[in-house]
Amino acid sequence: MGNKASLLQLDALELRARLASGAISALEVTEACLDRIAERDDLVRAWAWIDPGFARDQARKLDDHRKAGRPLGALHGLPVALKDIIDTAKIPTENGCKADAGRVPLQDAFIVERLKQAGAVILGKTVTTELAFMQPGPTRNPVNPDHTPGGSSSGSAAAVADFQVPLAIGSQTGGSVIRPASYCGVTGFKPSFGAIPRRGVLMQSPTLDTLGVFARTPLEAAMLAEVLFGHDVQDKATTPAPFPQLLDIARKDPPVKPIFALIKPPGWADADPQLHDAFAELAEAMGEQMFEAALPAVFDQAAELRERINFAEMARCYYRYDRKGENTLGPLTREALDKGAQILARDYLSAMDWAQIYGAALDEVFSRCDAIICPAAPGPAPKGLDFTGSAIFNGLWTMVGTPAVTIPAFTAENGLPMGLQLVGPRGEDARLLRNAHWFTRWLDTLGA
Amino acid sequence: MGNKASLLQLDALELRARLASGAISALEVTEACLDRIAERDDLVRAWAWIDPGFARDQARKLDDHRKAGRPLGALHGLPVALKDIIDTAKIPTENGCKADAGRVPLQDAFIVERLKQAGAVILGKTVTTELAFMQPGPTRNPVNPDHTPGGSSSGSAAAVADFQVPLAIGSQTGGSVIRPASYCGVTGFKPSFGAIPRRGVLMQSPTLDTLGVFARTPLEAAMLAEVLFGHDVQDKATTPAPFPQLLDIARKDPPVKPIFALIKPPGWADADPQLHDAFAELAEAMGEQMFEAALPAVFDQAAELRERINFAEMARCYYRYDRKGENTLGPLTREALDKGAQILARDYLSAMDWAQIYGAALDEVFSRCDAIICPAAPGPAPKGLDFTGSAIFNGLWTMVGTPAVTIPAFTAENGLPMGLQLVGPRGEDARLLRNAHWFTRWLDTLGA
Repeated sequence: MGNKASLLQLDALELRARLASGAISALEVTEACLDRIAERDDLVRAWAWIDPGFARDQARKLDDHRKAGRPLGALHGLPVALKDIIDTAKIPTENGCKADAGRVPLQDAFIVERLKQAGAVILGKTVTTELAFMQPGPTRNPVNPDHTPGGSSSGSAAAVADFQVPLAIGSQTGGSVIRPASYCGVTGFKPSFGAIPRRGVLMQSPTLDTLGVFARTPLEAAMLAEVLFGHDVQDKATTPAPFPQLLDIARKDPPVKPIFALIKPPGWADADPQLHDAFAELAEAMGEQMFEAALPAVFDQAAELRERINFAEMARCYYRYDRKGENTLGPLTREALDKGAQILARDYLSAMDWAQIYGAALDEVFSRCDAIICPAAPGPAPKGLDFTGSAIFNGLWTMVGTPAVTIPAFTAENGLPMGLQLVGPRGEDARLLRNAHWFTRWLDTLGA
Repeated sequence: MGNKASLLQLDALELRARLASGAISALEVTEACLDRIAERDDLVRAWAWIDPGFARDQARKLDDHRKAGRPLGALHGLPVALKDIIDTAKIPTENGCKADAGRVPLQDAFIVERLKQAGAVILGKTVTTELAFMQPGPTRNPVNPDHTPGGSSSGSAAAVADFQVPLAIGSQTGGSVIRPASYCGVTGFKPSFGAIPRRGVLMQSPTLDTLGVFARTPLEAAMLAEVLFGHDVQDKATTPAPFPQLLDIARKDPPVKPIFALIKPPGWADADPQLHDAFAELAEAMGEQMFEAALPAVFDQAAELRERINFAEMARCYYRYDRKGENTLGPLTREALDKGAQILARDYLSAMDWAQIYGAALDEVFSRCDAIICPAAPGPAPKGLDFTGSAIFNGLWTMVGTPAVTIPAFTAENGLPMGLQLVGPRGEDARLLRNAHWFTRWLDTLGA
């Protein structure tokens, strides 16, 4: 990378400080992103929509704003990428779906309003799988373009991993933030259910859909996420809450040495043996700071129950796409909609009850640890671009609404990253990020 | 009625005052109830469980409590009847269902704890239809025993109407408080959804089930209901709220003359012509204080949508009864469970969305009036005991969660009462009761 590109190697917190001081301009950072994208987009294909002029205009205005001595937002001048299921006024938002080609919303999503207020540069829209489900888009894994980047937030994960943008936003209904972050080797943070309002975001499954963020480290993720947390009356999953102070809390040292509960969730036995080895080494290195907690056998059904909720609600939410016909939808979406349309209300309600029971059972585990540790995905990103990988290690946390963060911790023999996932009690997002930050520093000391 | 029985003619507020002063004892009031029940029970059959010794024991203890000069609860010494779907510790709670014969709960329901704290005498358990659905129990209408008392809170309505107890508690999933109150000629109050915690009460349909009260006047209903309003973490429909002050507010004069919106809901055309006449006279008498508001055509589907939610959730909640077999359940329950088991999740979720839309549409009406006025039932109680009557005029208000109160306003040619229903905006229970109290006084001036 050249001079400008080296800007993109900077931590977003450092970038923010330089932007705030005027040491660099928003336009310089934006140009660096645009250069990198121009260089790499043919290979990585992370973007659904990008317009250099549109990005530069925002950057120039923000620079003028700073030069005029006005107060700066928390993300002043930082480019952010948005998964293309997040509505942006006057900018196409096509939901990765042929039926929505050319769709241009009239209004910004809640989180886009928040980003603009915070002074972020909306750099562009990133590729999503079709309707944020499993039918892949064109994006490739930047670490090895023959491999999937994961999904559904494919472009957001890939763009951050490839240093095309420092920060990005995605969403998770099964494993759509944590999995692609793990596959691409970045930090993915899926907050507690209800933490970030979803007004203006494509709704797939109202009881599961959760907005999340991508960055390179937990602190950068905390900086972005705290701008997005909030309450919106149009999203009944959200409630009024004080400013979450994710960054301030995450930066601090834990008051006592954190204790982690290693969970080998359903699917563990079928995971990549390299992952088994990595976790065995980790257990040895952590010593008394980690203990293994077994989940009761009822958790074996969690994936099926989560899928039942997902598919049933998807059949309701995507009814209009269903009616637009089989010609436009990919086979994976089609199949899920057909399955969802046959689910009985009684079985759906039963699955909802189980989500509550799982939550209560996990509270028992959380009473004995600071965070749960488990793999983020069953191995490195699979080869091929027609499958975004398995969400087997993510769905449970989405269903119970607990916050989860993945950090790049291991590297497979083929050079692809494998993430480690930390999970905290619902609502304790800041403490989870603090433990994740602690964990990255601890990993660094191991490497050293 | 004799000397003791005349106690039961007293307003419960007056009774409360005399009990508090010691002018009468809790035992005297309880004995009066027991005498009246002994005299009338063969005819009315309102009770599922009653034990004179158990009632007297409570009354004696409450009298001792008062004599010891201790502070008195808000319902000190007042007998209250409980629909037999409300759990009472050590007392049978059989849910009107053969499969639950001999069932004795270990714990009191939330509202039973509240009643005991308030110093009420738990007089006994009243007849419910089978599982609070439509299969009738043995109760008869006290005004004319050849007619249904309505349901599902059959015994609670009949016992209050027949002066066997001054206050009773019931529940409404379709029209199970308002309809029997209308048929028996008492005041029924179904508060806003989520106002009264349902812990320890048979769950039929968690998004519809609403606890309510029976009394002879709105003020008495307010006195009882305000003891029951509250928050319980185990009932997610409830939220923390300040003491509702239903009685203090209901007692007051409205600050301005209340304006009522007459709604002729779906089913109006098929209602008893006597009801049409009564409402025409009412419109004339009210003059400018009442205007007619038309509901948009989408409301025609409300009954079907509410039933869909009810049946689907019932199929989930009553799965254990379903499995106990066809031999024990009545045909009406059986049929609803079979229908409910076939409802698709997609259609269930669609109905839930419509409930929100109806709520928003009604907000527009409420912006123009103090309360909605409509019939409580399509006519007087039908003849016969094998059908509890139609809830066509109740289900909409249950589905949108608005508070509703019925007051005895009209009398049919056959001498049976017909109630008038007032409906207020959700959460404005106290103002609704104030308007209902105003309305009863206004009706009295008409009669005079």
